[in-house]
Amino acid sequence: MQRSLGHLLSILHRQSQVYINHSLKTFNITSAEAAFLLYLYQKDGATQEELSSYLFIDRAATARAIKSLAAKGWVIKSKDSTDRRYRIYLTAKAREHRKQIRQRVKGWNEFLSAGIDKRDAATVLSVLEKMVAKVEGTNIKGMEGC
Amino acid sequence: MQRSLGHLLSILHRQSQVYINHSLKTFNITSAEAAFLLYLYQKDGATQEELSSYLFIDRAATARAIKSLAAKGWVIKSKDSTDRRYRIYLTAKAREHRKQIRQRVKGWNEFLSAGIDKRDAATVLSVLEKMVAKVEGTNIKGMEGC
Repeated sequence: MQRSLGHLLSILHRQSQVYINHSLKTFNITSAEAAFLLYLYQKDGATQEELSSYLFIDRAATARAIKSLAAKGWVIKSKDSTDRRYRIYLTAKAREHRKQIRQRVKGWNEFLSAGIDKRDAATVLSVLEKMVAKVEGTNIKGMEGC
Repeated sequence: MQRSLGHLLSILHRQSQVYINHSLKTFNITSAEAAFLLYLYQKDGATQEELSSYLFIDRAATARAIKSLAAKGWVIKSKDSTDRRYRIYLTAKAREHRKQIRQRVKGWNEFLSAGIDKRDAATVLSVLEKMVAKVEGTNIKGMEGC
């Protein structure tokens, strides 16, 4: 039985959750939370809206993940003195484990890409980027006739 | 900021849930449940284990989805008289709406693939198939050093 694109994407996503939950268990970080940490490792002090929009995770789920990461001592939430928006900052503990956490998540990408022809892998990345850009430019919830 | 393969997969998966939940709302079917119906449309009378393993959805979540689909009148669970295993069968209502349900889910694949070069799209499908086969052949949970 041939699997559709959507079905393949969902299998790989679910398996990535299993893999990342497992590989970050010693840090007490879930795969859902890891995505936020990874973004903050590149852009410490991001706002919650920015995280939510970049990661395509709705505001409620973003708020829950940040709250949980804060409770576990990975981030702190602090109000910006100029624009009064809340910004999320990495704690010393998060900065200290930056390398290991990034490497463990990277392990999943490496596992998936191992043995795949380099040009094909580049095509996949480029096509998926285009698909995400299309999704970004579309109001999925407001779609009619689908 | 360049997104990793895993990140692109997770965005597309989450957006597919939003899209399919929305497009099947009139049928009162969630995207999680739709995957089971689609498999049964191709193989009515599958066992719960078969559904769970083909869809890469764990047994507990499979049991919940089947229970919910049964409560909403889309499937019935019946014990096989020969091997005494439970098999899942589509109801008359499910068979009646087969075409519309399949088309609405197909809409997501068509949306994603629209405007993508045919050869590139074929490369993506083939690479993702390979990745899923790799995941199938690996005990993700038992992986060491990841």
